[in-house]
Amino acid sequence: MRDVAILGIGVTKFGELWDKSLRDLFVEASLAAMDDAKVTKLDMIYAGCMTGGLFNGQEHIGSLMADYLGTGPIPALRVESACASGGSALASAVIAVASGYYDVVLAGGVEKMTDVSGGKATEALGAAADADYELFLGATFPSLYAMMAVAHMHAYGTTRKALTEVSVKNHFHGSKNPKAQYPFEITPEAVLASPMVSEPLHLLDCSPITDGAAAVIVVPLEKVKKDKRAVRITGFGRSTDTIALHQRKDMASIGAVARAAEAAYKMAGKTPKDIHLAEVHDCFTIAEIMSYEALGFCPKGKGGEFVLSGATRLGGRIPVNTSGGLKAKGHPVGATGIAQVCEITSQLRGEAGQRQVKGARTGLTSNMGGSGASAVVHILEVNK
Amino acid sequence: MRDVAILGIGVTKFGELWDKSLRDLFVEASLAAMDDAKVTKLDMIYAGCMTGGLFNGQEHIGSLMADYLGTGPIPALRVESACASGGSALASAVIAVASGYYDVVLAGGVEKMTDVSGGKATEALGAAADADYELFLGATFPSLYAMMAVAHMHAYGTTRKALTEVSVKNHFHGSKNPKAQYPFEITPEAVLASPMVSEPLHLLDCSPITDGAAAVIVVPLEKVKKDKRAVRITGFGRSTDTIALHQRKDMASIGAVARAAEAAYKMAGKTPKDIHLAEVHDCFTIAEIMSYEALGFCPKGKGGEFVLSGATRLGGRIPVNTSGGLKAKGHPVGATGIAQVCEITSQLRGEAGQRQVKGARTGLTSNMGGSGASAVVHILEVNK
Repeated sequence: MRDVAILGIGVTKFGELWDKSLRDLFVEASLAAMDDAKVTKLDMIYAGCMTGGLFNGQEHIGSLMADYLGTGPIPALRVESACASGGSALASAVIAVASGYYDVVLAGGVEKMTDVSGGKATEALGAAADADYELFLGATFPSLYAMMAVAHMHAYGTTRKALTEVSVKNHFHGSKNPKAQYPFEITPEAVLASPMVSEPLHLLDCSPITDGAAAVIVVPLEKVKKDKRAVRITGFGRSTDTIALHQRKDMASIGAVARAAEAAYKMAGKTPKDIHLAEVHDCFTIAEIMSYEALGFCPKGKGGEFVLSGATRLGGRIPVNTSGGLKAKGHPVGATGIAQVCEITSQLRGEAGQRQVKGARTGLTSNMGGSGASAVVHILEVNK
Repeated sequence: MRDVAILGIGVTKFGELWDKSLRDLFVEASLAAMDDAKVTKLDMIYAGCMTGGLFNGQEHIGSLMADYLGTGPIPALRVESACASGGSALASAVIAVASGYYDVVLAGGVEKMTDVSGGKATEALGAAADADYELFLGATFPSLYAMMAVAHMHAYGTTRKALTEVSVKNHFHGSKNPKAQYPFEITPEAVLASPMVSEPLHLLDCSPITDGAAAVIVVPLEKVKKDKRAVRITGFGRSTDTIALHQRKDMASIGAVARAAEAAYKMAGKTPKDIHLAEVHDCFTIAEIMSYEALGFCPKGKGGEFVLSGATRLGGRIPVNTSGGLKAKGHPVGATGIAQVCEITSQLRGEAGQRQVKGARTGLTSNMGGSGASAVVHILEVNK
């Protein structure tokens, strides 16, 4: 089993990109990653995409992207784990390179979500839930996360103010990211004044519908030992949970994230205290609060206090979602897990510009699918 | 990199299974494979499924199946490469076990295709083509394969009689497989009398719409060295081609299958002459003829003569599709690649009953996506 590293990254602008198709987006991010890595040939492509079928009437995403990327007839595969498809693509690439079968692997993610309208996007995303027992009965993701928020408030006294602070903080970070869908700050008052989507979640508690793609190039560490811009992947972990929220023992925690983190920490030989910054899955503000707890950044039930303490703001103990997170940067679901890794890679390289976390040497990404039915955690470190 | 083996297999009945859901099918096949392998715990699940989104409104297939399989919160991932999703799931499992990260991995495939009606199945399957430049303009798969058939007839003089023989042969084989969707023989006259779907392809040249699932358990070879029912996976290969048929230089060949086979033969240290039997991707009769050529079973352009010679019938030099193939056994697209492997495993174990190929020690599976835009080939051998 070989150690692996990220050699190049690429991210498109996130947003409502009417003039770019599914394939355009993937190719743009992939070419940027290949340029960054200074590679022209690939051995394999893992393409994360949640639902090209329901958003674009297009499956067979791996072959499509290999074709349009123009790298010749190389093996290519789509991997899907709902909103954790991107992280899953990276984990697949790590295993592929570690195994010795492949040397230069592209892990990418893409989603083109604005090709549908009239509630179809919410329905498509609902396919990440239990379609037969949740979506069919009207439980879309805003309502599922709203129930989780209520459960967390009930169990731990988490406040509305804490939810608001997640959104305000991530927009503050996103204001420093020119590729973010919403690169501007918002006020707490704006969050509370935004329409109620599913109580207690307002519109500005929810990540948006986004087009975008991201890609990274994964190689054996031994080939880039002296490359200071290479970033080591020292741990990964994956887990699942019941697909339906109502079948979990505890709706106020996300067990799959905790288990994935435990595995990743163990593989990397790290603890939460070793992590300098993280990108976590804030599809809804409550998800970020629950992620802090699942990842061990703060004790269980203390996620709300943790964000209000300023610990996860730029300049705090462990800045979280310096990219703007899913909330401000945008959430093209299949791309999100890879975009998280691109942000951490930029930070560990010291290339994050206005949002640079000083002295960042170890970062974590936490990518989640559905209401927490799948989770992928990666730990990245600077190349010594 | 560790050598790997298949320890257990499971296949559901294929057909129009109105009383079984997507999850029911996957779980049934998986439990059968686990029973066959005598394992109760899994480290990882790779679930092949082409389009749970368009057929069932359900994505997040990996987590769903891990949940309903009841093996605890283990990592699970869906892989998709259109009709090659099953073969891709197995290749992913092989890499995962070979890497050393996982010891007991389930590779499964499933498709529940009869939940839609009114042309929706053909439209869903069309998502495996270039949705923007083929399906949008009306080119569904029967018409794409019809064009390939015409190109092959034009280039090599392939006859209508040869196409017919593929279907008749596979139904003859399928008549010996109680799990086949259509376990009965058909006559050449019936093929020609069946409705024309897209000239020159009649209805009985086309694989059907099918519900079904299949699963295999993959383990390190070192753990099953003395188990005669274990079957070694000694080679695999994957490749892609242009997603759109019209962008290929040659419409009368399937280059991705040829490249995947070349890689698999090389890894296994085999040539086509070493193969005792094969399961190939006869989604349409012409596809089986082109597969013979791509896999090196006969010279280019001679596939029609090859099937007419009887070489690929039970008792011939290299029986192909003893299971009944996609034509008679059925083609639940995400399951097909795994079902092929289950058939070869049964044969190499000497457990194929009425359709047993005597002395079979080395078998091959060839699973293809779209009009040949992706291909996965595996070579399996008896455990010495």
